[in-house]
Amino acid sequence: MPTLPSPARHAVAVRRFPSSAVRDLLRLAERPDVLSLAGGFPAPEAIPTGRLRAGLERALGADGPYGPPALQYGATEGSAGLRGLLARRLAEAGGAPVAPDGVVVTSGAQQALDLLARVLVTPGDPVVVEAPGYVGTLQAFAAAGADLVAVPVDDDGLDTGDLEARLRRGLRPRAVVAVPELQNPTGAHLAEERRSHLVALAERYGFVVVEDDPYGTLRSDGPPGRPLAGRSRLVVSVGTVSKLLAPGLRVGWAAGPPEVVTALGRAKQVADLHTSTLAQAVVLDVLADDAFLAAHTATVRAGYAARARALHGAVVEALGDRVRVARPDGGLFAWAELPGVDTGALLPRAVAHGVAFVPGRAFHVDGGGASHLRLSSGSLPVDRMPEAADRLRRALEA
Amino acid sequence: MPTLPSPARHAVAVRRFPSSAVRDLLRLAERPDVLSLAGGFPAPEAIPTGRLRAGLERALGADGPYGPPALQYGATEGSAGLRGLLARRLAEAGGAPVAPDGVVVTSGAQQALDLLARVLVTPGDPVVVEAPGYVGTLQAFAAAGADLVAVPVDDDGLDTGDLEARLRRGLRPRAVVAVPELQNPTGAHLAEERRSHLVALAERYGFVVVEDDPYGTLRSDGPPGRPLAGRSRLVVSVGTVSKLLAPGLRVGWAAGPPEVVTALGRAKQVADLHTSTLAQAVVLDVLADDAFLAAHTATVRAGYAARARALHGAVVEALGDRVRVARPDGGLFAWAELPGVDTGALLPRAVAHGVAFVPGRAFHVDGGGASHLRLSSGSLPVDRMPEAADRLRRALEA
Repeated sequence: MPTLPSPARHAVAVRRFPSSAVRDLLRLAERPDVLSLAGGFPAPEAIPTGRLRAGLERALGADGPYGPPALQYGATEGSAGLRGLLARRLAEAGGAPVAPDGVVVTSGAQQALDLLARVLVTPGDPVVVEAPGYVGTLQAFAAAGADLVAVPVDDDGLDTGDLEARLRRGLRPRAVVAVPELQNPTGAHLAEERRSHLVALAERYGFVVVEDDPYGTLRSDGPPGRPLAGRSRLVVSVGTVSKLLAPGLRVGWAAGPPEVVTALGRAKQVADLHTSTLAQAVVLDVLADDAFLAAHTATVRAGYAARARALHGAVVEALGDRVRVARPDGGLFAWAELPGVDTGALLPRAVAHGVAFVPGRAFHVDGGGASHLRLSSGSLPVDRMPEAADRLRRALEA
Repeated sequence: MPTLPSPARHAVAVRRFPSSAVRDLLRLAERPDVLSLAGGFPAPEAIPTGRLRAGLERALGADGPYGPPALQYGATEGSAGLRGLLARRLAEAGGAPVAPDGVVVTSGAQQALDLLARVLVTPGDPVVVEAPGYVGTLQAFAAAGADLVAVPVDDDGLDTGDLEARLRRGLRPRAVVAVPELQNPTGAHLAEERRSHLVALAERYGFVVVEDDPYGTLRSDGPPGRPLAGRSRLVVSVGTVSKLLAPGLRVGWAAGPPEVVTALGRAKQVADLHTSTLAQAVVLDVLADDAFLAAHTATVRAGYAARARALHGAVVEALGDRVRVARPDGGLFAWAELPGVDTGALLPRAVAHGVAFVPGRAFHVDGGGASHLRLSSGSLPVDRMPEAADRLRRALEA
């Protein structure tokens, strides 16, 4: 058997995309002895395996001129059926019409964010992100060459007053990316007056608002706020089934003005031709089942609320006044502060004590968040949470 | 219900990705009265629906700490099982070891090409493509800002003598992208002396060779040539299950030197986190089934060979000496020339006569291929091929 010439005469120079602390941590947290509060894995009970199996059976049973459409090539922007259903749902939520061709199906919300970065950003363009904010957004817009501008998030979500002050001083961002519901990592909801303020600023200064909403359906304290989408043609909304059905399907979407959707479709063709037709078919089958979806959503919502309460209680019980943490209104994450502690330095000790979390710096572009940490209640069984919190205490005291 | 402000005060400027004639044509060819020789749809009988269904059942039945792994988030570079299996298969084919972490699972081969373009190309870098060549390659590298350099393909594949002459004159490409088996659109195989020549040129001039091989397993005239992968650390190989199992799964891969694979993994995390774990699980189940795979591959190969013969015969019968077309050794495509005819201008007439094809210019970056056309035998039933060829004749005479 021939062997490869070694070492290579020429090393291959490659462009380095930003890596992620979350990613490296997920690897640590895979050790069976580690109780993970790190990853964003949905709760196992939130994934309706039986209903998805039934949907897959139907998808494979359907026939088309080239065999089952769920196994053949499909349209780049997504199946007509799924686009139409998503358009109807988005119109209902936003209170304004959405045409089916105003929606592009993507390979998860992450791809929607990446394609948006690719079509919106010219290297050097300022893009406003939340501080703290979703790591995948920071990575996608950084990879496109954006100059990331961090605007703080507080209990009412993105601080649009701070944003306006920067705009008055001359900032002209290409886009502002925000998670208005159960913000990742803080759990904050964007207040209604800030929503209208943000849209007014977009109209005045001409930037795109990317409304990234993976979590709105998981709110346990009442219905989600009124979406930004539907209030302006400058809003692009991004969604996913990852937290409501299954992340392994990799089905998300983007919806927005025609010029953006057309550009996203072309970028999508270059990126991967189209999203799995099999995954799209099963998602359509399940999302169209109103009775199932209503019951499942209620179950998932209650489950996450119980998990969030349990984790919050366990952390407060174990750490007392050494921790500042608000109880989130459902969803997967709690954002905690350990005043005076460097959580990046704490992490290796925590893993040695058998517990993992994501240090706060991962959610900041400017080194902020040093004493914060994100705790996920998504996947750890409720009865293990006290032990996880106690391990965190012991790591802190070590 | 509020209505959107219209027209928008600010139109959104977007980056335009290259569009594709193939894409617009697929839309035309969707009309039920059109016999399509245009798209690259695999034959319906090549898609093993029953076997895939059994694989899906097993994938959904498996259990993990966070529910069925086929429905949860997975590792960015792909599942350990699928990467290991692909590494073993690639090592067997290439005659040199491939480590499992030398493989990245992608959302189809198109994503592998796009990610390669994103990590290898700095805008302005020359990249050599085949003339004529696969449209998706031209688009992905153009989108990354590459300066595409077209090197001709003849009956023995990419003309490495022409490539060497350009290298001697100073061309320093970042990469050379070639389809060595059943080349799209010509059907040519890269001759062995050109394979060793190409690899020697890569080692001398320090460029990456991207070996894109979606079709090798479909050759009906004998085993495929020895891969380029395994001969040099500068080769990255790209593959897919789209033509052997089902394109709707969107599962492909790239394998190559560690520095490229690491960069691809980071780019993949930004692009879509990971490929559908459900699709990966069913692909692993089926690809690991040696007995099924051997029988299925033989069936698919024979089916495409019969289709290729039938289409070739029908076209020669209908058009006589007005057409020059070689009979391909299987696969989906025949590359034909209608001397003196502008096939781009012919297309609308052909569609009016109820037949579609892809004009040759779509496969060239420099306006070449004006009198050529690509005919696909992949999806039209064999008994409709004489009618399709006759419609083409009538369009030509109109």
